[in-house]
Amino acid sequence: MSTSTALLLADLTGVAVFAASGASAAVAKRLDIFGVVFVGFVAALGGGIFRDLVINEVPPLAFADWRYASTAAVTAAAVFWLHPQLARLRTTVLVLDAAGLGLFTVTGTLKALDAQMPAVGACLIGMLTAIGGGLGRDLLTGEIPVVLRREIYAVAALAGSIAVALLNFVGHARTVQLTGAAVLVFGLRLIALRRRWSAPVAMLRPPRTGTRGPQT
Amino acid sequence: MSTSTALLLADLTGVAVFAASGASAAVAKRLDIFGVVFVGFVAALGGGIFRDLVINEVPPLAFADWRYASTAAVTAAAVFWLHPQLARLRTTVLVLDAAGLGLFTVTGTLKALDAQMPAVGACLIGMLTAIGGGLGRDLLTGEIPVVLRREIYAVAALAGSIAVALLNFVGHARTVQLTGAAVLVFGLRLIALRRRWSAPVAMLRPPRTGTRGPQT
Amino acid sequence: MSTSTALLLADLTGVAVFAASGASAAVAKRLDIFGVVFVGFVAALGGGIFRDLVINEVPPLAFADWRYASTAAVTAAAVFWLHPQLARLRTTVLVLDAAGLGLFTVTGTLKALDAQMPAVGACLIGMLTAIGGGLGRDLLTGEIPVVLRREIYAVAALAGSIAVALLNFVGHARTVQLTGAAVLVFGLRLIALRRRWSAPVAMLRPPRTGTRGPQT
Repeated sequence: MSTSTALLLADLTGVAVFAASGASAAVAKRLDIFGVVFVGFVAALGGGIFRDLVINEVPPLAFADWRYASTAAVTAAAVFWLHPQLARLRTTVLVLDAAGLGLFTVTGTLKALDAQMPAVGACLIGMLTAIGGGLGRDLLTGEIPVVLRREIYAVAALAGSIAVALLNFVGHARTVQLTGAAVLVFGLRLIALRRRWSAPVAMLRPPRTGTRGPQT
Repeated sequence: MSTSTALLLADLTGVAVFAASGASAAVAKRLDIFGVVFVGFVAALGGGIFRDLVINEVPPLAFADWRYASTAAVTAAAVFWLHPQLARLRTTVLVLDAAGLGLFTVTGTLKALDAQMPAVGACLIGMLTAIGGGLGRDLLTGEIPVVLRREIYAVAALAGSIAVALLNFVGHARTVQLTGAAVLVFGLRLIALRRRWSAPVAMLRPPRTGTRGPQT
Repeated sequence: MSTSTALLLADLTGVAVFAASGASAAVAKRLDIFGVVFVGFVAALGGGIFRDLVINEVPPLAFADWRYASTAAVTAAAVFWLHPQLARLRTTVLVLDAAGLGLFTVTGTLKALDAQMPAVGACLIGMLTAIGGGLGRDLLTGEIPVVLRREIYAVAALAGSIAVALLNFVGHARTVQLTGAAVLVFGLRLIALRRRWSAPVAMLRPPRTGTRGPQT
């Protein structure tokens, strides 16, 4: 299997799992079939559209290649019809989301490096490709974006994109190693969920004058 | 009247009705004059800016041609001053929104086809041009986006953009037929509002263990 | 000091103050360190990314030049660790935000003019560069965007961008005059905050039938 075929397969798999994640979130919010497909589309393709605009690959793949939109729409519709079999929607959303995070981190970073972005920019774009769709999904469904909550999320994507940039730098960015980077992100995210790892929150000192916090 | 003049007129009319829709929504939310003009601007030009970025027509028309921003600003300001005469703001917003949906679906799909986008991508871009402004308006004013609610909205735009792509394919994309496609979208949307047509919502089976839904 | 060095310094200062504004808002919302850095990043670089996409300067500076992302990340992290010393977070956010508004209005308008945008478009882009980051910050942290509230905000930026366009037109767009334009925006915004200046809100006439407002 050639690298470009592998990259396409990884990308379409990422599209499918993020579409399923978005559709599951939309079903849980009681949206109708079109709302479910739309949120699935945004979750699956929003990050990639942003990436392609930023690296000047226009028109974005989501519009230039019909397989992307079709994969997203079919997967989201399938989740709409099949979800009653999914007993625990919330867990499903989280695991699919972690898988999409890993796949899009790797493909997003690689595409940015291929477009001659400098390493720091490529890592940021890889991370934003991975978290962009979920951010759109959460804004559309009125949730506080998962990326801002007290959890390891964007940082897992950032670790993966740095790994891809390093592999690319030393010339070992082949399918096996890149799969390893995707699994690293997926694993970091799942362990963080499982162990409830969370990043520190700032301590707000109470002001001298009374009992109310300074943010009020 | 040449095709390009007709397209410009249709586009500016769409800008005006979407600006009025956004401004009415902002007035109903008690925003000030600048908030009203800003929401009108986003509702009128947000979809087109997205379209132009995606089909690589930069700078977007909203910035390159002063008539677009001026039409949006003047219309939104007019709604701000004149709205007390409008007895039923909510109905006004919905009807103007339907008209803008029809006009932007047609002009958005045509521009994407002119920019050599493949048919599937052009239909998606036409739909997103039409729903993008309303999505921005709803996010800014803290409403659940109308496109996600149990109503025929994006699907009316999609039907219109497919009609435009088919007309273009058979070589009949002239003013009369295209006006028909815009009226189709407008009519579908109004009938859906009138008859309270809605798309199906997924049934959530209760889990075995108790009375709480699986999404909790 | 050359004009381009001055422009870079002004831009990076704007990045730092907007990152601090975003980070302060995120700390007040009790987000974790990554959420704080992410909101800081969006507040600092969101407006500029939008500007660069629109004027076709791709990849956007935020990704092409590592100093931008680094300045934003370091500043946001510093606010996270240092903020307990900041007694009044809300005031700090507002003042930093006003400073960023002034700096980004000037640099955004200048860059749009340099990219051969017509004057009306350049003023709009300058204003959107300045308000875009704050808009993203507010959407991410679940606040009603400050730009839509009853305050002089976008209009201060618009006044500054028109001043820059006029200075450019008469050939006096040098460092001193441009600094004056930035101070104008900063001052307008601070005075508006201090004196609680606000723009007019539309009067909603009650309908004939009863006591409820027409917007219900």
